[in-house]
Amino acid sequence: MFVSENLSVNEKGNLTIGGVDTIDLVNQYGTPLYVLDKDLIRKNCKKFVKSINKHYDGNGLVCYASKALSCKEIYRIMKDEGLGVDTVSIGEMYTALSVGFPAEKIYFHGNNKADEELKFALENKIGRIVVDNLQELKRLSELAVKLGVVASIMLRVKPGIDAHTHDFIRTGQIDSKFGFAIETNEALEAAKCVVDSKNINLVGAHCHIGSQILDVDPFMLAAEVMIDYINDVKNSTSVTMSELNLGGGFGIKYTSNDDPVDYENYMEPVSEVLNKKCSDYGIKTPFIVIEPGRSLIGPAGITLYKVGARKEIPNIRTYISVDGGMTDNPRYALYKSKYDALVANKANLEKTDVVTIAGKCCESGDLIGENIKLQHAEAGDIIAICATGAYNYSMSSNYNRILKPPIVMVSGGKSRVVVKRETLKDLVRNDI
Amino acid sequence: MFVSENLSVNEKGNLTIGGVDTIDLVNQYGTPLYVLDKDLIRKNCKKFVKSINKHYDGNGLVCYASKALSCKEIYRIMKDEGLGVDTVSIGEMYTALSVGFPAEKIYFHGNNKADEELKFALENKIGRIVVDNLQELKRLSELAVKLGVVASIMLRVKPGIDAHTHDFIRTGQIDSKFGFAIETNEALEAAKCVVDSKNINLVGAHCHIGSQILDVDPFMLAAEVMIDYINDVKNSTSVTMSELNLGGGFGIKYTSNDDPVDYENYMEPVSEVLNKKCSDYGIKTPFIVIEPGRSLIGPAGITLYKVGARKEIPNIRTYISVDGGMTDNPRYALYKSKYDALVANKANLEKTDVVTIAGKCCESGDLIGENIKLQHAEAGDIIAICATGAYNYSMSSNYNRILKPPIVMVSGGKSRVVVKRETLKDLVRNDI
Repeated sequence: MFVSENLSVNEKGNLTIGGVDTIDLVNQYGTPLYVLDKDLIRKNCKKFVKSINKHYDGNGLVCYASKALSCKEIYRIMKDEGLGVDTVSIGEMYTALSVGFPAEKIYFHGNNKADEELKFALENKIGRIVVDNLQELKRLSELAVKLGVVASIMLRVKPGIDAHTHDFIRTGQIDSKFGFAIETNEALEAAKCVVDSKNINLVGAHCHIGSQILDVDPFMLAAEVMIDYINDVKNSTSVTMSELNLGGGFGIKYTSNDDPVDYENYMEPVSEVLNKKCSDYGIKTPFIVIEPGRSLIGPAGITLYKVGARKEIPNIRTYISVDGGMTDNPRYALYKSKYDALVANKANLEKTDVVTIAGKCCESGDLIGENIKLQHAEAGDIIAICATGAYNYSMSSNYNRILKPPIVMVSGGKSRVVVKRETLKDLVRNDI
Repeated sequence: MFVSENLSVNEKGNLTIGGVDTIDLVNQYGTPLYVLDKDLIRKNCKKFVKSINKHYDGNGLVCYASKALSCKEIYRIMKDEGLGVDTVSIGEMYTALSVGFPAEKIYFHGNNKADEELKFALENKIGRIVVDNLQELKRLSELAVKLGVVASIMLRVKPGIDAHTHDFIRTGQIDSKFGFAIETNEALEAAKCVVDSKNINLVGAHCHIGSQILDVDPFMLAAEVMIDYINDVKNSTSVTMSELNLGGGFGIKYTSNDDPVDYENYMEPVSEVLNKKCSDYGIKTPFIVIEPGRSLIGPAGITLYKVGARKEIPNIRTYISVDGGMTDNPRYALYKSKYDALVANKANLEKTDVVTIAGKCCESGDLIGENIKLQHAEAGDIIAICATGAYNYSMSSNYNRILKPPIVMVSGGKSRVVVKRETLKDLVRNDI
């Protein structure tokens, strides 16, 4: 009935998340409101960890891709669950470190890291820097020499696989702003450069093949291609990379049409590929890093809005205007992303309407979604958009000077604020 | 040679804005950096004001559509220039009022105004509330009664014209989340409801026909349709609306392909329509409000970035990675918007390359633009993206926990910060 396992309906007919009545949450914290279910986040973390433990002898690390949602509390959870984190900016590293996240389990990614960010990473002993290009390698080596430290790095490699949902293609030399292409020998040449660079320790290679991937096949292909690459590097440089980071991209159930890969058994077929390839080449199986972001937190989140107006345009469509929009969830405006929605205070009723849910921005493109099945909604009703844990708060803006909603976390039937609602004073804090 | 009139090149070969060397600005304030030319903003304001003065006996008000860019300093400029402002949230009203902007010249728009916002508008004597739907009208009337005040309102009307760039169509009943349709008689019925509502004073009607409109013809058609509506309202209710707000949507020169309407003479053909129609109907010509946003500030702004890496993918494309991206300018990601760009420290050289300018976000869609003509750019060069004054800072986010750039304003050859650069502490200020 519900798209996420932590959603249900109580005897009042109200939607619950993690057992907590969403209407009680609205009464206590107001709207719009992001709600995250900590217990489901923990459960998802454990599934990925179990996958590596069960199918790969625990020889790996699950790193949370924190671009999906970065705030102090998320890093606390990941720390408690023993995960690492994938970061892409000084801001994400800073937030993780500010709650005592172990620096050695932080990976620093990105196609264009500033000198200031590289320096910050070295000074704070960030575990791995994932080098994107030779210009960055040179800057990093110079900085490491200057600081008298050795940078442990991975190379960002383009494996020539482009995967999304149920499609994937082997493209060879992919058109991407990220990393070194294998096909053109660029990635192999990069490894040679690393070996010749001062104060750089080549630990491994990283790839990322796509987003919202619902099958395991493209990851198996990526594992194969990457082991070929590691073997090529070994033959050319005599360095055997000891770590392989297969990135993220694990899909989630946004609507009933999505049927994601089973996170707990994801490593089973991937391990088979890794073990066979490494055995064929006579190399040690690498320490595996995987970077789920959306799949850990996406299904754990919902957004609650209050309906301000219902506007029926005969023979065209019905608009339901809510008190948020592209400012707290720009994914429809950016990608035409689909979401499941319901009227939280009528969750026990049938979905009789097909509507367009519109935000409050002064922009016609400010929609949460079109042709969404919904219970009959009127002004004053509460709308829940499901599976908004990832890429909602993290992508939010103050367009139209709209305030960012708070994040409330529920766990064990209780709720508390983990990110406070923005205030009018927040808006002008940097204005002179 | 340059897309905006305030850009030039100095003897060092550097790009200048309002006569100020952009490389000096980078050295002083760092990158990424938004720069706004106050003198050009003022000049653009004066053009629109002159248009009403010269062609419509000064019987109107130019209101700055502050969703294009809202910060304290912008409201100070608009106040000095005698303009009104169009706001769409409590945040915009609050920011305007915080610099002493006259409340009576503030217009409050939006398809879904919260009770809190309507109350704020009434308590602060905001000049006009532009009512979007009957549910809002009812809430507003109840609030006005409760507070013992009279709300002066305009009705947001759908004139059935959809205009963008050089295209416009007369659609009749348009599919929009905003306002009341004329075609279906909804707008006329709304006026009757207003007349019957307590503590509501029906002052006029508002329409908005599109964005980045480069011709005057659609505005002439809008004027015609709206005077028909005002006459119909008069005949049905005996109320003659005294104000007509024709909205905004005036286009700017983003690239050399754009040739915008002449702002100073915009009112000439529109006045002709208004005078003729009103004379035909025997009604008084209305007080005209127009709401330019982009056209006042867009051409006055540029964004300066530092190049981190140049990545040539043979036979495919060259990526130039800069230290900002969709976080400070999401318009390419959202709309595939086109921009003119140049290497600010090589502004005197020929544009020999065609490149893709990529941001630093961990997302392949994070591009400033594709197939952009540019001087040969290497790591360390400064890239200027032109005409970014509107819908850049206002739409910016902290995606990837990237810090928002500051806004520096130049005027009379001098520069100063008007919005401070965000800090790491800003990022976590609301995290618990």
